[in-house]
Amino acid sequence: MAVKKIGFVGLGAMGLPMARNLAKSQFNVRGFDLRPGAAATLIEVGGESADSAAAACAGADAVMLMVVSLPQAESVLFDAGALDALAPGAVVIVSATCPPEGVVTLARRVEATGRLFVDAPVSGGVVGAESGSLTIMASGSDAAFELAMPVLNKVGGKIVRVGSEPGQGATAKAVNQLMCGVHIAVAAEALSLAEKLGLDMDAMFDIVSGSAAGSWMLSNRGPRMLQADPPVTSAVDIFVKDLTIVLEAGHGAKTALPLAAVAHQLFLSVSGRGLGAIDDSQVIRAYRSLQGRE
Amino acid sequence: MAVKKIGFVGLGAMGLPMARNLAKSQFNVRGFDLRPGAAATLIEVGGESADSAAAACAGADAVMLMVVSLPQAESVLFDAGALDALAPGAVVIVSATCPPEGVVTLARRVEATGRLFVDAPVSGGVVGAESGSLTIMASGSDAAFELAMPVLNKVGGKIVRVGSEPGQGATAKAVNQLMCGVHIAVAAEALSLAEKLGLDMDAMFDIVSGSAAGSWMLSNRGPRMLQADPPVTSAVDIFVKDLTIVLEAGHGAKTALPLAAVAHQLFLSVSGRGLGAIDDSQVIRAYRSLQGRE
Repeated sequence: MAVKKIGFVGLGAMGLPMARNLAKSQFNVRGFDLRPGAAATLIEVGGESADSAAAACAGADAVMLMVVSLPQAESVLFDAGALDALAPGAVVIVSATCPPEGVVTLARRVEATGRLFVDAPVSGGVVGAESGSLTIMASGSDAAFELAMPVLNKVGGKIVRVGSEPGQGATAKAVNQLMCGVHIAVAAEALSLAEKLGLDMDAMFDIVSGSAAGSWMLSNRGPRMLQADPPVTSAVDIFVKDLTIVLEAGHGAKTALPLAAVAHQLFLSVSGRGLGAIDDSQVIRAYRSLQGRE
Repeated sequence: MAVKKIGFVGLGAMGLPMARNLAKSQFNVRGFDLRPGAAATLIEVGGESADSAAAACAGADAVMLMVVSLPQAESVLFDAGALDALAPGAVVIVSATCPPEGVVTLARRVEATGRLFVDAPVSGGVVGAESGSLTIMASGSDAAFELAMPVLNKVGGKIVRVGSEPGQGATAKAVNQLMCGVHIAVAAEALSLAEKLGLDMDAMFDIVSGSAAGSWMLSNRGPRMLQADPPVTSAVDIFVKDLTIVLEAGHGAKTALPLAAVAHQLFLSVSGRGLGAIDDSQVIRAYRSLQGRE
Protein backbone atom coordinates (compact mmCIF):
# COMPACT_ATOMS: atom_id res chain seq x y z
CA MET A 1 0.00 0.00 0.00
CA ALA A 2 1.17 3.51 -0.82
CA VAL A 3 -0.43 6.80 0.13
CA LYS A 4 -2.47 8.44 -2.64
CA LYS A 5 -5.22 10.36 -0.86
CA ILE A 6 -4.29 12.72 1.97
CA GLY A 7 -6.56 14.61 4.34
CA PHE A 8 -4.85 17.79 5.58
CA VAL A 9 -6.27 19.53 8.66
CA GLY A 10 -5.03 22.95 9.74
CA LEU A 11 -4.40 25.36 6.85
CA GLY A 12 -2.66 28.16 8.73
CA ALA A 13 0.62 29.96 8.05
CA MET A 14 2.50 26.65 8.20
CA GLY A 15 -0.16 24.13 7.16
CA LEU A 16 -1.33 25.82 3.97
CA PRO A 17 2.06 25.88 2.20
CA MET A 18 2.71 22.30 3.38
CA ALA A 19 -0.64 21.15 1.93
CA ARG A 20 0.10 23.04 -1.30
CA ASN A 21 3.45 21.26 -1.66
CA LEU A 22 1.69 17.91 -1.27
CA ALA A 23 -1.03 18.86 -3.79
CA LYS A 24 1.62 19.96 -6.32
CA SER A 25 3.17 16.48 -6.19
CA GLN A 26 1.62 13.05 -6.76
CA PHE A 27 -0.99 13.27 -3.98
CA ASN A 28 -4.71 13.89 -3.99
CA VAL A 29 -5.06 16.40 -1.13
CA ARG A 30 -8.30 17.46 0.56
CA GLY A 31 -7.84 20.28 3.06
CA PHE A 32 -9.92 21.51 5.97
CA ASP A 33 -9.62 24.46 8.30
CA LEU A 34 -12.13 26.00 10.70
CA ARG A 35 -11.70 29.33 8.93
CA PRO A 36 -13.88 29.41 5.79
CA GLY A 37 -11.94 30.09 2.59
CA ALA A 38 -8.61 28.92 4.03
CA ALA A 39 -8.27 26.36 1.25
CA ALA A 40 -8.58 28.86 -1.63
CA THR A 41 -4.94 28.72 -2.71
CA LEU A 42 -4.86 24.96 -2.12
CA ILE A 43 -7.50 24.56 -4.82
CA GLU A 44 -5.38 26.67 -7.20
CA VAL A 45 -2.67 24.00 -7.18
CA GLY A 46 -5.03 21.04 -7.68
CA GLY A 47 -6.13 20.33 -4.11
CA GLU A 48 -9.69 20.17 -2.85
CA SER A 49 -11.53 21.90 -0.03
CA ALA A 50 -13.59 19.87 2.46
CA ASP A 51 -16.45 21.08 4.68
CA SER A 52 -15.28 19.15 7.73
CA ALA A 53 -12.29 17.27 9.06
CA ALA A 54 -14.18 14.01 8.55
CA ALA A 55 -14.92 14.91 4.94
CA ALA A 56 -11.26 15.77 4.34
CA CYS A 57 -10.29 12.34 5.65
CA ALA A 58 -13.05 10.23 4.03
CA GLY A 59 -11.28 7.19 2.58
CA ALA A 60 -7.86 8.86 2.82
CA ASP A 61 -4.67 6.80 3.21
CA ALA A 62 -3.11 9.45 5.41
CA VAL A 63 -4.05 12.48 7.44
CA MET A 64 -1.58 15.22 8.30
CA LEU A 65 -2.48 17.46 11.24
CA MET A 66 -0.88 20.90 11.40
CA VAL A 67 -3.13 22.30 14.12
CA VAL A 68 -2.16 24.55 17.04
CA SER A 69 -2.19 22.10 19.93
CA LEU A 70 -2.71 18.57 21.19
CA PRO A 71 -6.34 19.27 22.28
CA GLN A 72 -7.08 20.45 18.72
CA ALA A 73 -5.53 17.27 17.30
CA GLU A 74 -7.61 15.13 19.67
CA SER A 75 -10.77 17.07 18.79
CA VAL A 76 -10.19 16.60 15.05
CA LEU A 77 -9.42 12.89 15.27
CA PHE A 78 -11.91 11.73 17.89
CA ASP A 79 -14.70 14.30 18.25
CA ALA A 80 -14.95 15.45 14.62
CA GLY A 81 -14.73 11.88 13.33
CA ALA A 82 -11.60 12.25 11.17
CA LEU A 83 -10.03 9.05 12.49
CA ASP A 84 -13.02 6.83 11.75
CA ALA A 85 -13.33 8.35 8.26
CA LEU A 86 -9.83 7.26 7.24
CA ALA A 87 -9.19 4.10 5.22
CA PRO A 88 -8.32 1.04 7.35
CA GLY A 89 -4.53 0.92 7.81
CA ALA A 90 -4.13 4.63 7.06
CA VAL A 91 -1.36 6.61 8.76
CA VAL A 92 -1.97 9.55 11.09
CA ILE A 93 0.83 12.15 10.95
CA VAL A 94 0.81 14.75 13.74
CA SER A 95 3.05 17.74 13.02
CA ALA A 96 1.76 20.13 15.66
CA THR A 97 4.05 20.90 18.60
CA CYS A 98 2.59 18.76 21.43
CA PRO A 99 3.66 17.51 24.87
CA PRO A 100 5.38 14.11 24.44
CA GLU A 101 3.24 12.30 27.02
CA GLY A 102 0.03 13.47 25.35
CA VAL A 103 1.31 12.24 21.99
CA VAL A 104 1.93 8.78 23.43
CA THR A 105 -1.69 8.58 24.62
CA LEU A 106 -2.98 9.92 21.31
CA ALA A 107 -0.91 7.34 19.40
CA ARG A 108 -2.33 4.47 21.47
CA ARG A 109 -5.89 5.54 20.71
CA VAL A 110 -5.07 5.80 16.99
CA GLU A 111 -3.32 2.43 16.90
CA ALA A 112 -6.25 0.78 18.74
CA THR A 113 -8.32 1.36 15.57
CA GLY A 114 -5.75 -0.42 13.37
CA ARG A 115 -4.30 2.79 11.98
CA LEU A 116 -0.60 3.71 12.09
CA PHE A 117 0.91 6.73 13.78
CA VAL A 118 3.88 9.00 13.06
CA ASP A 119 4.91 11.76 15.40
CA ALA A 120 6.41 14.41 13.07
CA PRO A 121 6.86 17.93 14.45
CA VAL A 122 8.66 20.40 12.21
CA SER A 123 11.17 23.22 12.45
CA GLY A 124 11.97 25.88 9.87
CA GLY A 125 9.08 28.31 10.03
CA VAL A 126 6.92 29.67 7.24
CA VAL A 127 9.91 30.02 4.91
CA GLY A 128 10.73 26.32 5.29
CA ALA A 129 7.08 25.34 4.89
CA GLU A 130 6.79 27.29 1.65
CA SER A 131 9.98 25.91 0.14
CA GLY A 132 9.34 22.34 1.32
CA SER A 133 12.60 22.42 3.24
CA LEU A 134 11.37 21.90 6.81
CA THR A 135 13.37 19.83 9.27
CA ILE A 136 11.10 17.04 10.48
CA MET A 137 11.78 15.30 13.82
CA ALA A 138 9.96 12.03 13.39
CA SER A 139 9.37 8.87 15.35
CA GLY A 140 7.17 5.83 14.79
CA SER A 141 7.17 2.14 13.91
CA ASP A 142 8.85 0.85 10.76
CA ALA A 143 5.48 0.21 9.11
CA ALA A 144 4.18 3.69 9.95
CA PHE A 145 7.38 5.27 8.77
CA GLU A 146 7.39 3.42 5.46
CA LEU A 147 3.89 4.63 4.70
CA ALA A 148 4.51 8.22 5.82
CA MET A 149 7.93 8.80 4.30
CA PRO A 150 6.81 9.79 0.77
CA VAL A 151 4.48 12.34 2.37
CA LEU A 152 7.14 13.73 4.71
CA ASN A 153 9.60 13.98 1.82
CA LYS A 154 7.34 16.44 0.02
CA VAL A 155 7.08 18.86 2.96
CA GLY A 156 10.53 18.49 4.51
CA GLY A 157 14.08 18.85 3.25
CA LYS A 158 15.56 16.91 6.16
CA ILE A 159 13.69 14.02 7.78
CA VAL A 160 15.43 12.82 10.94
CA ARG A 161 14.05 9.72 12.64
CA VAL A 162 14.85 10.13 16.32
CA GLY A 163 13.30 6.86 17.48
CA SER A 164 10.64 4.24 16.89
CA GLU A 165 8.25 5.21 19.71
CA PRO A 166 5.51 7.82 19.35
CA GLY A 167 6.35 10.84 21.52
CA GLN A 168 10.06 10.82 20.71
CA GLY A 169 9.50 13.22 17.81
CA ALA A 170 7.63 15.52 20.19
CA THR A 171 10.49 15.20 22.67
CA ALA A 172 13.03 16.14 20.00
CA LYS A 173 10.93 19.18 19.16
CA ALA A 174 10.80 20.09 22.87
CA VAL A 175 14.60 19.82 23.09
CA ASN A 176 14.86 22.04 20.02
CA GLN A 177 12.41 24.63 21.37
CA LEU A 178 14.15 24.64 24.75
CA MET A 179 17.28 25.95 23.06
CA CYS A 180 15.38 28.34 20.78
CA GLY A 181 13.46 29.91 23.66
CA VAL A 182 16.45 30.27 25.97
CA HIS A 183 18.58 31.67 23.13
CA ILE A 184 16.03 34.43 22.48
CA ALA A 185 15.78 35.26 26.17
CA VAL A 186 19.54 35.30 26.77
CA ALA A 187 20.09 37.53 23.75
CA ALA A 188 17.58 39.92 25.35
CA GLU A 189 19.35 39.62 28.72
CA ALA A 190 22.74 40.42 27.20
CA LEU A 191 21.61 43.20 24.86
CA SER A 192 19.55 44.88 27.59
CA LEU A 193 22.63 44.90 29.85
CA ALA A 194 24.61 46.56 27.06
CA GLU A 195 21.82 49.12 26.58
CA LYS A 196 21.70 49.88 30.30
CA LEU A 197 25.45 50.45 30.37
CA GLY A 198 25.37 52.79 27.41
CA LEU A 199 27.42 50.80 24.95
CA ASP A 200 27.33 51.51 21.23
CA MET A 201 24.66 48.93 20.32
CA ASP A 202 25.69 48.57 16.67
CA ALA A 203 29.26 47.86 17.77
CA MET A 204 28.02 45.47 20.44
CA PHE A 205 25.81 43.55 18.04
CA ASP A 206 28.68 43.39 15.55
CA ILE A 207 30.89 41.77 18.22
CA VAL A 208 28.54 39.16 19.62
CA SER A 209 27.01 38.05 16.34
CA GLY A 210 30.45 37.28 14.92
CA SER A 211 32.02 35.69 18.02
CA ALA A 212 31.65 32.52 20.07
CA ALA A 213 28.58 34.24 21.56
CA GLY A 214 26.70 33.80 18.29
CA SER A 215 23.45 31.94 17.84
CA TRP A 216 20.89 31.61 15.07
CA MET A 217 18.37 33.38 17.31
CA LEU A 218 20.75 36.23 18.17
CA SER A 219 21.30 36.93 14.46
CA ASN A 220 17.60 36.59 13.66
CA ARG A 221 15.92 38.23 16.68
CA GLY A 222 18.70 40.55 17.91
CA PRO A 223 18.12 43.34 15.37
CA ARG A 224 14.38 43.28 16.10
CA MET A 225 15.08 43.55 19.85
CA LEU A 226 16.62 46.96 19.17
CA GLN A 227 13.51 48.16 17.29
CA ALA A 228 10.68 49.81 19.25
CA ASP A 229 7.82 48.07 17.45
CA PRO A 230 9.11 45.38 15.06
CA PRO A 231 6.91 43.34 12.69
CA VAL A 232 5.63 40.08 14.19
CA THR A 233 7.46 37.09 12.78
CA SER A 234 6.56 34.80 15.68
CA ALA A 235 4.54 35.90 18.70
CA VAL A 236 5.52 35.94 22.38
CA ASP A 237 2.64 33.55 23.13
CA ILE A 238 4.10 30.88 20.83
CA PHE A 239 7.07 30.58 23.20
CA VAL A 240 4.80 30.79 26.25
CA LYS A 241 3.12 27.69 24.77
CA ASP A 242 6.26 25.92 23.52
CA LEU A 243 8.20 26.41 26.76
CA THR A 244 5.15 25.12 28.66
CA ILE A 245 5.44 21.96 26.54
CA VAL A 246 9.19 21.84 27.22
CA LEU A 247 8.60 22.05 30.97
CA GLU A 248 5.86 19.40 30.78
CA ALA A 249 8.31 17.15 28.91
CA GLY A 250 10.84 17.75 31.68
CA HIS A 251 8.23 17.09 34.34
CA GLY A 252 7.17 13.86 32.62
CA ALA A 253 10.80 12.76 32.56
CA LYS A 254 11.40 14.00 36.12
CA THR A 255 14.11 16.27 34.74
CA ALA A 256 14.85 19.74 36.13
CA LEU A 257 15.21 22.38 33.40
CA PRO A 258 16.23 25.54 35.28
CA LEU A 259 17.16 27.72 32.29
CA ALA A 260 13.99 26.81 30.38
CA ALA A 261 11.95 27.58 33.49
CA VAL A 262 13.47 31.06 33.84
CA ALA A 263 13.06 31.82 30.13
CA HIS A 264 9.42 30.73 30.34
CA GLN A 265 8.79 33.19 33.17
CA LEU A 266 10.23 36.03 31.09
CA PHE A 267 8.02 35.32 28.05
CA LEU A 268 5.07 34.87 30.41
CA SER A 269 5.66 38.24 32.06
CA VAL A 270 5.47 40.00 28.67
CA SER A 271 2.33 38.06 27.78
CA GLY A 272 0.87 38.95 31.19
CA ARG A 273 1.12 42.63 30.32
CA GLY A 274 -1.27 41.99 27.44
CA LEU A 275 1.53 41.81 24.88
CA GLY A 276 1.35 38.12 23.96
CA ALA A 277 0.71 38.88 20.30
CA ILE A 278 3.79 41.07 19.73
CA ASP A 279 7.03 39.77 18.22
CA ASP A 280 8.90 37.34 20.48
CA SER A 281 12.04 39.50 20.24
CA GLN A 282 10.20 41.84 22.58
CA VAL A 283 10.92 39.54 25.52
CA ILE A 284 13.61 42.22 25.94
CA ARG A 285 10.81 44.34 27.44
CA ALA A 286 10.75 41.98 30.44
CA TYR A 287 14.39 42.91 31.07
CA ARG A 288 13.79 46.62 30.56
CA SER A 289 11.00 46.35 33.14
CA LEU A 290 13.32 44.56 35.57
CA GLN A 291 15.73 47.45 35.09
CA GLY A 292 13.03 50.07 35.70
CA ARG A 293 13.32 51.34 32.14
CA GLU A 294 9.81 50.50 30.88
CA MET B 1 54.58 59.82 19.28
CA ALA B 2 54.19 56.23 18.06
CA VAL B 3 54.70 53.04 20.00
CA LYS B 4 58.03 51.31 19.39
CA LYS B 5 58.84 49.54 22.63
CA ILE B 6 56.21 47.29 24.21
CA GLY B 7 56.29 45.55 27.58
CA PHE B 8 54.12 42.42 27.50
CA VAL B 9 53.08 40.84 30.83
CA GLY B 10 51.37 37.45 30.95
CA LEU B 11 52.79 34.88 28.52
CA GLY B 12 50.19 32.15 28.88
CA ALA B 13 48.17 30.25 26.28
CA MET B 14 46.74 33.52 24.96
CA GLY B 15 49.46 36.03 25.85
CA LEU B 16 52.44 34.23 24.35
CA PRO B 17 51.10 34.02 20.77
CA MET B 18 49.89 37.63 21.05
CA ALA B 19 53.37 38.78 22.16
CA ARG B 20 54.94 36.74 19.37
CA ASN B 21 52.74 38.43 16.76
CA LEU B 22 53.84 41.83 18.08
CA ALA B 23 57.53 40.81 18.06
CA LYS B 24 57.24 39.55 14.49
CA SER B 25 56.07 43.01 13.37
CA GLN B 26 57.66 46.43 13.82
CA PHE B 27 57.74 46.39 17.63
CA ASN B 28 60.50 45.84 20.15
CA VAL B 29 58.81 43.48 22.63
CA ARG B 30 60.05 42.55 26.10
CA GLY B 31 57.99 39.87 27.76
CA PHE B 32 57.55 38.81 31.38
CA ASP B 33 55.72 35.96 33.04
CA LEU B 34 55.96 34.60 36.59
CA ARG B 35 56.76 31.17 35.13
CA PRO B 36 60.49 30.99 34.26
CA GLY B 37 61.16 30.12 30.61
CA ALA B 38 57.75 31.29 29.42
CA ALA B 39 59.40 33.72 27.00
CA ALA B 40 61.52 31.09 25.18
CA THR B 41 59.53 31.11 21.96
CA LEU B 42 59.15 34.89 22.16
CA ILE B 43 62.93 35.20 21.90
CA GLU B 44 62.91 32.94 18.82
CA VAL B 45 60.93 35.57 16.90
CA GLY B 46 63.05 38.53 17.96
CA GLY B 47 61.50 39.42 21.31
CA GLU B 48 63.31 39.72 24.62
CA SER B 49 62.77 38.17 28.02
CA ALA B 50 62.68 40.36 31.15
CA ASP B 51 63.30 39.31 34.76
CA SER B 52 60.43 41.35 36.14
CA ALA B 53 57.33 43.24 35.04
CA ALA B 54 59.14 46.51 35.77
CA ALA B 55 62.10 45.44 33.63
CA ALA B 56 59.76 44.49 30.76
CA CYS B 57 58.21 47.96 30.93
CA ALA B 58 61.37 50.05 31.47
CA GLY B 59 61.09 53.00 29.09
CA ALA B 60 58.37 51.26 27.03
CA ASP B 61 55.77 53.27 25.09
CA ALA B 62 53.09 50.68 25.80
CA VAL B 63 52.38 47.76 28.09
CA MET B 64 49.93 45.05 27.22
CA LEU B 65 48.58 42.95 30.10
CA MET B 66 47.22 39.49 29.33
CA VAL B 67 47.05 38.27 32.91
CA VAL B 68 44.33 36.15 34.53
CA SER B 69 42.46 38.72 36.58
CA LEU B 70 42.07 42.32 37.70
CA PRO B 71 44.02 41.76 40.96
CA GLN B 72 46.92 40.42 38.89
CA ALA B 73 46.79 43.48 36.63
CA GLU B 74 46.80 45.78 39.69
CA SER B 75 49.68 43.86 41.23
CA VAL B 76 51.77 44.13 38.06
CA LEU B 77 51.11 47.83 37.52
CA PHE B 78 51.23 49.16 41.08
CA ASP B 79 53.04 46.68 43.35
CA ALA B 80 55.63 45.37 40.87
CA GLY B 81 56.39 48.86 39.57
CA ALA B 82 55.51 48.33 35.91
CA LEU B 83 53.49 51.55 35.67
CA ASP B 84 56.26 53.79 37.04
CA ALA B 85 58.79 52.12 34.73
CA LEU B 86 56.89 53.10 31.57
CA ALA B 87 57.84 56.15 29.50
CA PRO B 88 55.82 59.29 30.34
CA GLY B 89 52.70 59.36 28.14
CA ALA B 90 52.83 55.60 27.49
CA VAL B 91 49.60 53.65 26.98
CA VAL B 92 48.45 50.83 29.26
CA ILE B 93 46.41 48.18 27.42
CA VAL B 94 44.52 45.71 29.63
CA SER B 95 43.27 42.65 27.73
CA ALA B 96 42.42 40.42 30.68
CA THR B 97 38.73 39.76 31.37
CA CYS B 98 37.97 42.05 34.33
CA PRO B 99 34.90 43.45 36.12
CA PRO B 100 33.98 46.79 34.49
CA GLU B 101 33.87 48.77 37.75
CA GLY B 102 37.35 47.57 38.70
CA VAL B 103 38.66 48.62 35.30
CA VAL B 104 37.29 52.14 35.79
CA THR B 105 39.19 52.45 39.08
CA LEU B 106 42.34 50.98 37.54
CA ALA B 107 42.13 53.41 34.62
CA ARG B 108 41.84 56.41 36.97
CA ARG B 109 44.98 55.37 38.83
CA VAL B 110 46.87 54.93 35.55
CA GLU B 111 45.68 58.26 34.13
CA ALA B 112 46.66 60.05 37.37
CA THR B 113 50.31 59.36 36.45
CA GLY B 114 49.90 60.98 33.02
CA ARG B 115 49.70 57.68 31.15
CA LEU B 116 46.87 56.71 28.80
CA PHE B 117 44.55 53.73 29.20
CA VAL B 118 42.80 51.36 26.79
CA ASP B 119 40.42 48.69 27.97
CA ALA B 120 40.80 45.91 25.38
CA PRO B 121 39.48 42.45 26.26
CA VAL B 122 39.59 39.86 23.51
CA SER B 123 37.53 37.00 22.15
CA GLY B 124 38.60 34.20 19.83
CA GLY B 125 40.59 31.84 22.01
CA VAL B 126 44.04 30.39 21.44
CA VAL B 127 43.36 29.85 17.72
CA GLY B 128 42.55 33.56 17.30
CA ALA B 129 45.57 34.59 19.39
CA GLU B 130 47.92 32.49 17.25
CA SER B 131 46.58 33.74 13.94
CA GLY B 132 46.34 37.38 15.09
CA SER B 133 42.63 37.34 14.32
CA LEU B 134 41.17 38.04 17.77
CA THR B 135 38.08 40.17 18.16
CA ILE B 136 39.00 43.07 20.44
CA MET B 137 36.30 44.96 22.38
CA ALA B 138 37.99 48.24 23.12
CA SER B 139 37.19 51.51 24.80
CA GLY B 140 39.25 54.55 25.73
CA SER B 141 39.89 58.19 24.90
CA ASP B 142 40.77 59.31 21.37
CA ALA B 143 44.40 59.92 22.38
CA ALA B 144 44.74 56.52 24.03
CA PHE B 145 43.12 54.82 21.09
CA GLU B 146 45.34 56.51 18.55
CA LEU B 147 48.45 55.34 20.38
CA ALA B 148 47.18 51.79 20.96
CA MET B 149 45.63 51.07 17.57
CA PRO B 150 48.82 49.94 15.76
CA VAL B 151 49.44 47.50 18.63
CA LEU B 152 45.86 46.18 18.64
CA ASN B 153 45.96 45.76 14.87
CA LYS B 154 48.80 43.24 15.18
CA VAL B 155 46.98 40.97 17.63
CA GLY B 156 43.38 41.36 16.47
CA GLY B 157 41.58 40.87 13.18
CA LYS B 158 38.59 42.91 14.26
CA ILE B 159 38.94 45.91 16.55
CA VAL B 160 35.55 47.23 17.69
CA ARG B 161 35.50 50.43 19.70
CA VAL B 162 32.44 50.19 21.92
CA GLY B 163 32.86 53.53 23.68
CA SER B 164 35.29 56.18 24.88
CA GLU B 165 35.17 55.38 28.61
CA PRO B 166 37.40 52.82 30.31
CA GLY B 167 35.27 49.89 31.49
CA GLN B 168 33.04 49.80 28.41
CA GLY B 169 35.34 47.28 26.76
CA ALA B 170 35.12 45.13 29.88
CA THR B 171 31.36 45.51 29.80
CA ALA B 172 31.22 44.39 26.17
CA LYS B 173 33.29 41.34 27.10
CA ALA B 174 30.91 40.63 29.98
CA VAL B 175 27.94 40.83 27.61
CA ASN B 176 29.75 38.46 25.24
CA GLN B 177 30.62 35.99 28.02
CA LEU B 178 27.08 36.12 29.38
CA MET B 179 25.84 34.66 26.10
CA CYS B 180 28.75 32.20 25.79
CA GLY B 181 28.22 30.80 29.29
CA VAL B 182 24.44 30.51 29.03
CA HIS B 183 24.74 28.94 25.56
CA ILE B 184 27.01 26.19 26.91
CA ALA B 185 24.71 25.56 29.87
CA VAL B 186 21.52 25.48 27.80
CA ALA B 187 23.09 23.08 25.29
CA ALA B 188 23.83 20.82 28.28
CA GLU B 189 20.28 21.25 29.59
CA ALA B 190 18.76 20.33 26.23
CA LEU B 191 21.09 17.44 25.39
CA SER B 192 20.79 15.94 28.88
CA LEU B 193 16.97 15.98 28.51
CA ALA B 194 17.33 14.16 25.18
CA GLU B 195 19.68 11.62 26.82
CA LYS B 196 17.27 11.04 29.70
CA LEU B 197 14.42 10.42 27.28
CA GLY B 198 16.41 7.92 25.25
CA LEU B 199 16.56 9.77 21.95
CA ASP B 200 19.11 8.86 19.27
CA MET B 201 21.75 11.44 20.25
CA ASP B 202 23.43 11.62 16.84
CA ALA B 203 20.05 12.30 15.24
CA MET B 204 19.24 14.84 17.94
CA PHE B 205 22.53 16.69 17.53
CA ASP B 206 22.04 16.67 13.76
CA ILE B 207 18.64 18.38 14.19
CA VAL B 208 19.53 21.09 16.68
CA SER B 209 22.88 22.07 15.20
CA GLY B 210 21.26 22.71 11.82
CA SER B 211 18.08 24.41 12.99
CA ALA B 212 17.03 27.68 14.60
CA ALA B 213 18.29 26.10 17.85
CA GLY B 214 21.87 26.42 16.66
CA SER B 215 24.64 28.32 18.40
CA TRP B 216 28.41 28.55 18.04
CA MET B 217 28.74 26.94 21.47
CA LEU B 218 26.35 24.09 20.66
CA SER B 219 28.40 23.20 17.57
CA ASN B 220 31.70 23.56 19.43
CA ARG B 221 30.90 22.10 22.88
CA GLY B 222 27.95 19.80 22.03
CA PRO B 223 30.04 16.90 20.67
CA ARG B 224 32.34 17.07 23.73
CA MET B 225 29.32 16.97 26.05
CA LEU B 226 28.54 13.51 24.70
CA GLN B 227 32.11 12.28 25.44
CA ALA B 228 32.88 10.80 28.86
CA ASP B 229 36.24 12.49 29.33
CA PRO B 230 36.94 15.02 26.57
CA PRO B 231 40.18 16.99 26.18
CA VAL B 232 40.19 20.34 27.99
CA THR B 233 39.82 23.22 25.56
CA SER B 234 38.61 25.67 28.20
CA ALA B 235 38.06 24.75 31.85
CA VAL B 236 34.89 24.88 33.94
CA ASP B 237 36.56 27.36 36.30
CA ILE B 238 37.05 29.89 33.49
CA PHE B 239 33.29 30.24 33.25
CA VAL B 240 32.93 30.23 37.03
CA LYS B 241 35.22 33.29 36.91
CA ASP B 242 33.75 34.93 33.80
CA LEU B 243 30.14 34.55 34.94
CA THR B 244 31.16 36.00 38.31
CA ILE B 245 32.41 39.04 36.39
CA VAL B 246 29.18 39.13 34.38
CA LEU B 247 27.10 39.12 37.57
CA GLU B 248 29.32 41.80 39.11
CA ALA B 249 28.78 43.91 36.00
CA GLY B 250 25.03 43.39 36.40
CA HIS B 251 25.23 44.24 40.09
CA GLY B 252 27.23 47.38 39.36
CA ALA B 253 24.58 48.42 36.83
CA LYS B 254 21.72 47.34 39.16
CA THR B 255 20.60 44.96 36.42
CA ALA B 256 19.05 41.56 37.11
CA LEU B 257 20.54 38.77 34.98
CA PRO B 258 18.48 35.69 35.85
CA LEU B 259 19.75 33.36 33.11
CA ALA B 260 23.40 34.22 33.77
CA ALA B 261 22.83 33.65 37.49
CA VAL B 262 21.40 30.16 36.90
CA ALA B 263 24.18 29.22 34.45
CA HIS B 264 26.75 30.39 36.99
CA GLN B 265 25.29 28.08 39.64
CA LEU B 266 25.55 25.12 37.26
CA PHE B 267 29.24 25.72 36.45
CA LEU B 268 29.87 26.36 40.14
CA SER B 269 28.28 23.05 41.14
CA VAL B 270 30.64 21.13 38.84
CA SER B 271 33.62 23.08 40.19
CA GLY B 272 32.40 22.39 43.72
CA ARG B 273 32.74 18.68 43.10
CA GLY B 274 36.45 19.22 42.53
CA LEU B 275 36.07 19.21 38.73
CA GLY B 276 36.90 22.86 38.01
CA ALA B 277 39.79 21.93 35.75
CA ILE B 278 37.84 19.68 33.37
CA ASP B 279 36.46 20.82 30.03
CA ASP B 280 33.60 23.33 30.35
CA SER B 281 31.39 21.09 28.16
CA GLN B 282 31.14 18.90 31.26
CA VAL B 283 28.70 21.33 32.83
CA ILE B 284 26.37 18.63 31.48
CA ARG B 285 27.40 16.64 34.57
CA ALA B 286 25.49 19.14 36.71
CA TYR B 287 22.35 18.17 34.81
CA ARG B 288 23.05 14.47 35.00
CA SER B 289 23.42 14.92 38.77
CA LEU B 290 20.11 16.78 38.94
CA GLN B 291 18.57 13.83 37.13
CA GLY B 292 20.12 11.31 39.51
CA ARG B 293 22.24 9.82 36.75
CA GLU B 294 25.71 10.68 38.09
